[in-house]
Amino acid sequence: MYAIEKDAHAWYNLEKYRGKVWLKAMEEQKDLRFCFNHMMREMIGPQGIAEREIEAMADEIGRAARSMDVRRGEMAWRDLPYSQGEAVKEIQSVADRARERFDAFVLLGIGGSALGPLAVHTALEPARYNEIEASRRGGPRVYIEDNIDPERMKALLDAIDIRRTLFYAVSKSGATSETMAQTMIVIQLLREVFPEGIGERVVIATGAEKGNLNAIAKREGCKTFVIPEGVGGRFSELSPVGLLPAAVAGIDVRALLNGAARMDARCSEPDVWKNPAYLGAVLQVLYMKKGRNISVMMPYVDALKYFADWYAQLWAESLGKRCDRDGRTVFCGQTPVKALGVTDQHSQLQLYTEGPDDKVVTFIGAEEYRANVYIPNAYPDITGISFLGGHTLKDLIHAEQFSTEYALCKAGRPSQTVWLPEVSADSIGQLIAYYEVQTAFAGELLNIDAFDQPGVEEGKDATYAMLGKPGYEEKKAELDARRPRQPRYIL
Amino acid sequence: MYAIEKDAHAWYNLEKYRGKVWLKAMEEQKDLRFCFNHMMREMIGPQGIAEREIEAMADEIGRAARSMDVRRGEMAWRDLPYSQGEAVKEIQSVADRARERFDAFVLLGIGGSALGPLAVHTALEPARYNEIEASRRGGPRVYIEDNIDPERMKALLDAIDIRRTLFYAVSKSGATSETMAQTMIVIQLLREVFPEGIGERVVIATGAEKGNLNAIAKREGCKTFVIPEGVGGRFSELSPVGLLPAAVAGIDVRALLNGAARMDARCSEPDVWKNPAYLGAVLQVLYMKKGRNISVMMPYVDALKYFADWYAQLWAESLGKRCDRDGRTVFCGQTPVKALGVTDQHSQLQLYTEGPDDKVVTFIGAEEYRANVYIPNAYPDITGISFLGGHTLKDLIHAEQFSTEYALCKAGRPSQTVWLPEVSADSIGQLIAYYEVQTAFAGELLNIDAFDQPGVEEGKDATYAMLGKPGYEEKKAELDARRPRQPRYIL
Repeated sequence: MYAIEKDAHAWYNLEKYRGKVWLKAMEEQKDLRFCFNHMMREMIGPQGIAEREIEAMADEIGRAARSMDVRRGEMAWRDLPYSQGEAVKEIQSVADRARERFDAFVLLGIGGSALGPLAVHTALEPARYNEIEASRRGGPRVYIEDNIDPERMKALLDAIDIRRTLFYAVSKSGATSETMAQTMIVIQLLREVFPEGIGERVVIATGAEKGNLNAIAKREGCKTFVIPEGVGGRFSELSPVGLLPAAVAGIDVRALLNGAARMDARCSEPDVWKNPAYLGAVLQVLYMKKGRNISVMMPYVDALKYFADWYAQLWAESLGKRCDRDGRTVFCGQTPVKALGVTDQHSQLQLYTEGPDDKVVTFIGAEEYRANVYIPNAYPDITGISFLGGHTLKDLIHAEQFSTEYALCKAGRPSQTVWLPEVSADSIGQLIAYYEVQTAFAGELLNIDAFDQPGVEEGKDATYAMLGKPGYEEKKAELDARRPRQPRYIL
Repeated sequence: MYAIEKDAHAWYNLEKYRGKVWLKAMEEQKDLRFCFNHMMREMIGPQGIAEREIEAMADEIGRAARSMDVRRGEMAWRDLPYSQGEAVKEIQSVADRARERFDAFVLLGIGGSALGPLAVHTALEPARYNEIEASRRGGPRVYIEDNIDPERMKALLDAIDIRRTLFYAVSKSGATSETMAQTMIVIQLLREVFPEGIGERVVIATGAEKGNLNAIAKREGCKTFVIPEGVGGRFSELSPVGLLPAAVAGIDVRALLNGAARMDARCSEPDVWKNPAYLGAVLQVLYMKKGRNISVMMPYVDALKYFADWYAQLWAESLGKRCDRDGRTVFCGQTPVKALGVTDQHSQLQLYTEGPDDKVVTFIGAEEYRANVYIPNAYPDITGISFLGGHTLKDLIHAEQFSTEYALCKAGRPSQTVWLPEVSADSIGQLIAYYEVQTAFAGELLNIDAFDQPGVEEGKDATYAMLGKPGYEEKKAELDARRPRQPRYIL
């Protein structure tokens, strides 16, 4: 068999497109590098941001940086990389038992309880993890069930043997209808197979006190992990919410936390020119204020596809707010769009370069991939394709990433790039901490509360009313009194 | 085991939220229903569209409708549901052979060559199709490989046995670097295992004449399907591009085409009030002109998650244009955002209801699901969750869909709903035809060419230059002369 892993001599030296200065720096350590060049006016022209616009914000930036310090006590999620020595031991012990005893691990959760676990799992485990034979996998198959579509629930129950499955029910409030419905279905099934008790087959993560999940845990004798106060759903990946599923799949959770701790320290620096999360937030907020209401995240790494989903919740739910902290109506926010390089070059790039100039694009690149695939020159005499032969897929994907950045730059449109030395537990930990601090800092710059979500109550209450939850009779009357749909608008 | 499929007595009659008038109509046939009520001013208030705004566009609508007729000859994709009797027989025969002889079917393609096949496969096959045992599946595992990440390529080669795999290389031009690189890798591997010839292990779909894939097909003796003139990548799902992968997985491609044909006929009606694609396009274009630059597609059906990806390419690449047909700079377009109900209620709804009022949301609902899962009342004495017991997951997902629509409506924000009687080959065929006609008609209303993609050339050329394709020396010199990155913007 020809060696797909053989390293090819690259015909063209791609290094120069990366910029030698910082490449060298990256070789010395495993820290992420953030390239903001294509956000700036001198690189992309008049639509770009001038350095003096950042200087002009010095007071606001200083105020926001001080506010980050003052509020640090409220932001318990920032302590997670440092504070969980004991929790990690417990998590590892539950995970070790799961890896020995169970064939499948099913997380029941939605939103912040699922997007982080999914992002980390897909980043750090091989593609098609559940299809790999058990011996190579070394642990149970992992299912992250973040929807209540009955077809999907049935497909899950078809795919697993519940006698050999560990369930992990995650909801901070314990009141999430979707998760509670899933949990009741699963518990009822387990009870019928194990009338002697199901406590060892369900692990729970929920808030410290009260709530339906604590009541269930007590009754069934389930192991429970606490989601601490000050750690909201979308900021909970580095708590037991995300660490247990990671550990069950064999991911090094200490490396994840170490990476996060290093980035958290980097992002505690008050000088905006030394703090990538602050500079990133300042540029993004400046662009928001200039009317760019769309933030595209486009990793050129298949394994980071779902990282963009995690980011999409973090950015959307934290900054999408009707009112600022002073109660003024501001309709703040920026819509995250998930894209994947190079795939979406063939789907979205036409719009990004020629459509409305309303976006900021963030590329995520990997300096090295965890596999090396060489393109053989299978048809040396077909000149339309023979130039590809001799390169590696890494050459090709890097060339495409630079080309997309270049095409946007030529169109005068902003982009930035986050470079990972490689996708690893350490670099993913860094990436998570970076975006959490960036989001919180953007909230401070915008003077909004980045940690609540008042806008979802209306929909929750309407669901409760329709399904007959006691106490929602008034909402039900409101729904019944709605203006009827007009038949002429139904085709 | 308790009967998860038992139909529960719904405590609350959800039917009234659907609107009785059109429910009745839907019972009589299997046609899709389009509810535009929440696009209109009388339902959502001043941000909505008034009927007279549509009436005021009568001339433009008439002109666009006539243009659709005049240009019908150029839009060969509209003929696909009617014209492929012979092709379907051939496709079915290749598919039957694949189902007997191969364990895996791998599509190599990107953009329009992959998004349609992926959308149809995930809509019509069970979740986790590749994990199901072969006997229940009845055909080969299916892989749709639309990226060149080396990690993913290696994971594919680890997962399949190439001796028992049929490859399907799809590129209309035959010049797509990504697909050609994948194809060369695969062909080189096959050659080493089958020195006697690989023609039976690779099927090709490409344009009628010339191109690298035709050269390869001739040399290797591969079966080739033609992607007809006038059928661009993003409009090619109902051509052999999409039909072969569907048939290989056992999907009824005739039912898919029949659904499309019925919808195409419905969408040929010149009266905008009788043509859902025209009315949908008019409303969307009106909202675009009022500054709504984001179009969210949010199916409340897990299986339609990737349908939103297909739509995202269609809408983005067709309408995202710098110039109109008269050469005026217009920066036309609207950014598609993919969301999934109910999952993204816990991620994006906060932004949608409280953030900038810049979106049109399209829900896709399923009247019936292909599985029925009952929620048992596992804890009758825990009142915070016992109200869920006795409902089905369908009740819950429908209640959430209506609640989200209601929350948007209360915030004065527009939405529309496409109702499928059920996800089936027929309804998916309808859905594809609906969006294709809607997109083409929007192009006519906006006076832009919805069928080209001039904006992707810059990036393609830069990639060619970096990888040393002959003829791109000038572009290479241009790249070499770029302004260097500034180290102070790299953190």
